[in-house]
Amino acid sequence: MVKNVSVIGSGAWGTALAIVAAHAGSRVTLWGRSSESVQEINSSHTHQTVFKHISLPKEIVATSSLATASNAQVLVLAVPAQKIREVALRLSSSLPKETVVVIAAKGIEEGTGYLMSEVLKETLSHNPIAALSGPNFAIEVAQGLPAASTVACEDRKVWPLILDTLAYSKFRLYMAEDLAGVQLGGALKNVLAIACGIVEAKKLGENAKSSLITRGLAEIVRLGQKMGAYPETFMGLSGVGDLMLTCMGSQSRNFKLGVAMGLGYADEDTILHLKETVEGVHTAKSIGKLAERLQIEMPICKMMENIIYHHVPIEKAIEDLLARPFKEESFHF
Amino acid sequence: MVKNVSVIGSGAWGTALAIVAAHAGSRVTLWGRSSESVQEINSSHTHQTVFKHISLPKEIVATSSLATASNAQVLVLAVPAQKIREVALRLSSSLPKETVVVIAAKGIEEGTGYLMSEVLKETLSHNPIAALSGPNFAIEVAQGLPAASTVACEDRKVWPLILDTLAYSKFRLYMAEDLAGVQLGGALKNVLAIACGIVEAKKLGENAKSSLITRGLAEIVRLGQKMGAYPETFMGLSGVGDLMLTCMGSQSRNFKLGVAMGLGYADEDTILHLKETVEGVHTAKSIGKLAERLQIEMPICKMMENIIYHHVPIEKAIEDLLARPFKEESFHF
Repeated sequence: MVKNVSVIGSGAWGTALAIVAAHAGSRVTLWGRSSESVQEINSSHTHQTVFKHISLPKEIVATSSLATASNAQVLVLAVPAQKIREVALRLSSSLPKETVVVIAAKGIEEGTGYLMSEVLKETLSHNPIAALSGPNFAIEVAQGLPAASTVACEDRKVWPLILDTLAYSKFRLYMAEDLAGVQLGGALKNVLAIACGIVEAKKLGENAKSSLITRGLAEIVRLGQKMGAYPETFMGLSGVGDLMLTCMGSQSRNFKLGVAMGLGYADEDTILHLKETVEGVHTAKSIGKLAERLQIEMPICKMMENIIYHHVPIEKAIEDLLARPFKEESFHF
Repeated sequence: MVKNVSVIGSGAWGTALAIVAAHAGSRVTLWGRSSESVQEINSSHTHQTVFKHISLPKEIVATSSLATASNAQVLVLAVPAQKIREVALRLSSSLPKETVVVIAAKGIEEGTGYLMSEVLKETLSHNPIAALSGPNFAIEVAQGLPAASTVACEDRKVWPLILDTLAYSKFRLYMAEDLAGVQLGGALKNVLAIACGIVEAKKLGENAKSSLITRGLAEIVRLGQKMGAYPETFMGLSGVGDLMLTCMGSQSRNFKLGVAMGLGYADEDTILHLKETVEGVHTAKSIGKLAERLQIEMPICKMMENIIYHHVPIEKAIEDLLARPFKEESFHF
């Protein structure tokens, strides 16, 4: 039987996931704020502001009514991380309690330091919650190029429904239980992407970049373990996979900011101003706090916090990092 | 007290490691076959055939006598993997039993399927054995750009000697015990690098490449565990780090072969002919055998074996891979 999937948020990622759900055989409702886009999608089956040359499958129907979008077995949240609480609150009156909510936003809530799933536990407390995260540039997914992603959900009973409605041969989903780990990888990678941008601008080489990412991964694993995530999750698509894509592919805004910083184009004011659009700038601060509270050594993330918030010159920060004593390579699984 | 380090093999990687050892404060002997190179290094402190614009530190003395090179506390083996047995046999009469032997070659011995450390256990059975592996392009290391690597040695007592003679601020060594794991990462990545080259040539996108590497890593971990390696080793510099560098950086010969195959420039004869210089071609076969014997599911490595050795067209192989049933993302640590 054909299932109803609603995607909340008609930006690039939301639209790509709507296309995926249609290819998976679902009846898709795509919610967006802009009535012009809604009309464009329903009449000409395009969404030019996000994807110039792509035709949307006719199974996608757009709406600007959250009540209409609530009529779904699976609801995907693809709004920016900082908007999740607001949208979830607005959905809470109309959404059936059995609807599976899939988080497709990456980030940590400002102020609370919450993962997106923790925000939903406060706002949609009765619904089964899942998180989708992986190495996925939206445009490639929309074009139907092969991609894979991890979906974490503690309730294994809803796994078949998620696969049935959101996966197809070109968008392969790997199921997992570790809700915290899958979300942490997606949030923390942005800090390392800024660092990689700096390495790029400073012409420190490919060896330095790979080493920075790998040692950064060790920090993420240490933090994740203290927060209840499984270390092996970080070895998967939402961890290593996404980290690799974001840090090596120059399509990432976080990476671009790092390049600008490394070239000396971005002073502290500019950086703080970019805070709203470049997720990693904020995450660097949240991690700094977390690392202190949980007493975890995170020298690379700390270095980024020092550069962004504490006036430490980039050269000095790199020098300090390289002057650290040699030690065992250890992940303590 | 200044220690003697000998590096056997004056190719790019051996020469880079000799430079590193000199920066670490060691007295360095660099062994090479070519008497012209030996003379050039000793008289003009350059080695033009491997590094055009680099001056070697004066602490490096070249020799073509293995007996002379045997006078060392630490001996680095930087000859090609398939030459290790021959060189080790020749060293066995002159090398002191307490000299720490550091393997800097990546690969699996043809015929036996042995790791390099297993070859040395047969040929230099009394010496402490270590393996150095990480995301290291030789030229960048020679230029003094920052890099990091893992050194595995089961005997922790010799760790300080290795750090003292081979590490400095710009070449950071992380110590580990897992000799098998560190070597496996360096050998197996080459098969995935060929696969990534195919993805590049076929324009399948960055998502596909990251997913392939990550799922390939899952295969490597499964194989490694069956062979006694620690899964966490693959999360480090010799695993994820090197994999990332080789698969994303287009400097790798394995990657370039994959691109040629994807574009249709390389037929089976050409590939088999390339076998000697492109390590991954041979490794694909060794892995195929191992996977069968140990009964491990390795669909990506299997796909590469099918393409290289069993006339399976690339398109068909990719289709089969994408048609596999969906499953749990699991590393079973």
